[in-house]
Amino acid sequence: MTLYKDKFSIIKPVRLGIVGGGQLGKMMAAEAKRMFMKVVILDPSVDCPASSIADKLIIGDFSDEQKIYDLSKEVDIITYEIELANATALNNLEESGFLVHPSPKTLSIIQNKYRQKKFLRDSRITVPDFELVSSEEQLKNYCSISGFPVLLKACEDSYDGRGNYLIKSENEISKALTYFSGRQCMVEKFVNFKKEISIMVARNLSGTISYFPIAENIHENHILKTSIIPARISKETEKKAIDLAIMTMKSLKGSGIFGIEMFIDEDDNVLINEIAPRPHNSGHYSIEACSISQFEQHIRAILNYPLLQPSLLSNAIMVNILGPNNYTGPYEITGIDDLFAIPGAKIHVYGKLETKPSRKLGHVTVVSNNMDPLLIKCNVEDFLKVREASS
Amino acid sequence: MTLYKDKFSIIKPVRLGIVGGGQLGKMMAAEAKRMFMKVVILDPSVDCPASSIADKLIIGDFSDEQKIYDLSKEVDIITYEIELANATALNNLEESGFLVHPSPKTLSIIQNKYRQKKFLRDSRITVPDFELVSSEEQLKNYCSISGFPVLLKACEDSYDGRGNYLIKSENEISKALTYFSGRQCMVEKFVNFKKEISIMVARNLSGTISYFPIAENIHENHILKTSIIPARISKETEKKAIDLAIMTMKSLKGSGIFGIEMFIDEDDNVLINEIAPRPHNSGHYSIEACSISQFEQHIRAILNYPLLQPSLLSNAIMVNILGPNNYTGPYEITGIDDLFAIPGAKIHVYGKLETKPSRKLGHVTVVSNNMDPLLIKCNVEDFLKVREASS
Repeated sequence: MTLYKDKFSIIKPVRLGIVGGGQLGKMMAAEAKRMFMKVVILDPSVDCPASSIADKLIIGDFSDEQKIYDLSKEVDIITYEIELANATALNNLEESGFLVHPSPKTLSIIQNKYRQKKFLRDSRITVPDFELVSSEEQLKNYCSISGFPVLLKACEDSYDGRGNYLIKSENEISKALTYFSGRQCMVEKFVNFKKEISIMVARNLSGTISYFPIAENIHENHILKTSIIPARISKETEKKAIDLAIMTMKSLKGSGIFGIEMFIDEDDNVLINEIAPRPHNSGHYSIEACSISQFEQHIRAILNYPLLQPSLLSNAIMVNILGPNNYTGPYEITGIDDLFAIPGAKIHVYGKLETKPSRKLGHVTVVSNNMDPLLIKCNVEDFLKVREASS
Repeated sequence: MTLYKDKFSIIKPVRLGIVGGGQLGKMMAAEAKRMFMKVVILDPSVDCPASSIADKLIIGDFSDEQKIYDLSKEVDIITYEIELANATALNNLEESGFLVHPSPKTLSIIQNKYRQKKFLRDSRITVPDFELVSSEEQLKNYCSISGFPVLLKACEDSYDGRGNYLIKSENEISKALTYFSGRQCMVEKFVNFKKEISIMVARNLSGTISYFPIAENIHENHILKTSIIPARISKETEKKAIDLAIMTMKSLKGSGIFGIEMFIDEDDNVLINEIAPRPHNSGHYSIEACSISQFEQHIRAILNYPLLQPSLLSNAIMVNILGPNNYTGPYEITGIDDLFAIPGAKIHVYGKLETKPSRKLGHVTVVSNNMDPLLIKCNVEDFLKVREASS
């Protein structure tokens, strides 16, 4: 099975279309351009991070069907950096023979958290216990059986923990439902995890699967703050997680890179938390620390090139640069001199024009085999400060 | 001495101007954009490699004074990727207080090969014996004393060995002089070297000097074909080379990254061959294999950030993708599938629209601690072929 091997086995200017021009789009475009591609981005913002290195920017919403068709006229293949991409348009394109990866069929399973979890459970993949919410009555009933806390989750359009509500007691139930008023919700048993980890896994059209070293993730206020690579887990847990990731990829189909977030509970069970059908914040470390980055691996996968197992050239720590909670507007970042004195530190600033509370403005990856990861995290946080722009 | 520390110690959109938009400009722009910069390029070609990721391209010749002033109006600091940059314009800018790095004074020493070698010899740095050529008579006289072969070199505007003529016997002398007819020339004693090596060395405005691991270079037809990192040399020779590089940087002044090419002769003497006041082909490996790339180090140096000693994350082999000798025109590169099956291989294709004999179209870096470098070189050359475009 060679699929469209002939189309891309020779280097000519392949035109890659990316739905979404955020930092993932920017880093993907950078890798594509290093290799041999032209990049066209669809994004609503003329100043989006990827705009600065795209060959062309189409201004439009991710959910705008017509804009996705417009994009398809400019490129040879379409991928996306955001789950909000209009799956109907992508599906129509795919059915007409246009190359869209990962497959919109996979995207539409993942886009809805309930559908995603149900698919995984039906595929006998370990996930926390969950149920679709149909009424307050039924939610109360679920809680009385499972016990508190539980997580109420909006099934769609929720990012970075903003779609989650932790219900700690019965009298918070109606408040939580009001918070998501009108949106489809699911309830999930809260996993009392001792660690959160993630694995980037890629699958190409020929079905080859490869995975990256496991990242250990530290969230703050529901936003990823730090990843430590390799995760500080036992060999047994590592094996469980990898097996689970491969099993998931075999079930999901679709080609491209996927970020699979997992919990390790107190009994060392590994459960799938969420799947992203795209490069993932916890895989950024691969740019500096691996022989292949998650962005190159994604491109290899969707063009059906050979997928190798990336090797870890150095241990690494990734720390996000997040907008402060008390300010929205133009900003500047101080402390670069101190940061640059940390051996192995590389900074990525995405170029967003304004900060917002907890907005991802950039990240730092430190490659180091002999420093304490939490010390590095503290240093990066102590040195780099985001503040209102001074001029 | 903090110099213009205040200007750049806070991350705001720093605008970097680069004279030259070839592959060095493209890779420098890519690193600048990852960090936090905007990039404006001056290049005569609208399709130059850097054009695809620059924020703005000014079309004009490197030697055009006015275009360099135009560039200065768009940016906060100017650097260059090519020695042909108009040193007079750059010097005028520097004298008016505009930031130009490396200093045009350093550039004007290096631009002329005779001036460069004389400066080095006057600074008591080991170089091969040489003399300015004033007449055929004097050249004959030089040869009769030094013996054959000697190298006749055009002092200016010569790249990639095209400015060198190897004179093997007396009856080639007048032919050689005719070859460079009208150009200023120098004659140099041919060094019967057993190895060619190079060191990338950076110096920031505060005077901190740092150097990269030494590359061992293999040329074919006077063009760099392969670099092996680290160079396969003894500890003693390594120390000699590093000492020589640091001594050179202390003499030359100027901030930025410099590529210093050296010979190791049969008695293990280390002699300086040539200096480039810019990133260098033999330092490309640092993108994948070092904790800091030569392009980031250059940016750190000219913005006067801390300069750390880059660490080698993995051994590496760099192989250039060169245009075949029998074809000029649109091209395609075949064999990408095979290349991608080499663990640790990363491809850079510069995006030049046409190939020419020996033109540098891209390069491959393979990070590997346990493969034979010459086997990797052969594999890359066997797999990747440049040919006339099929459509």
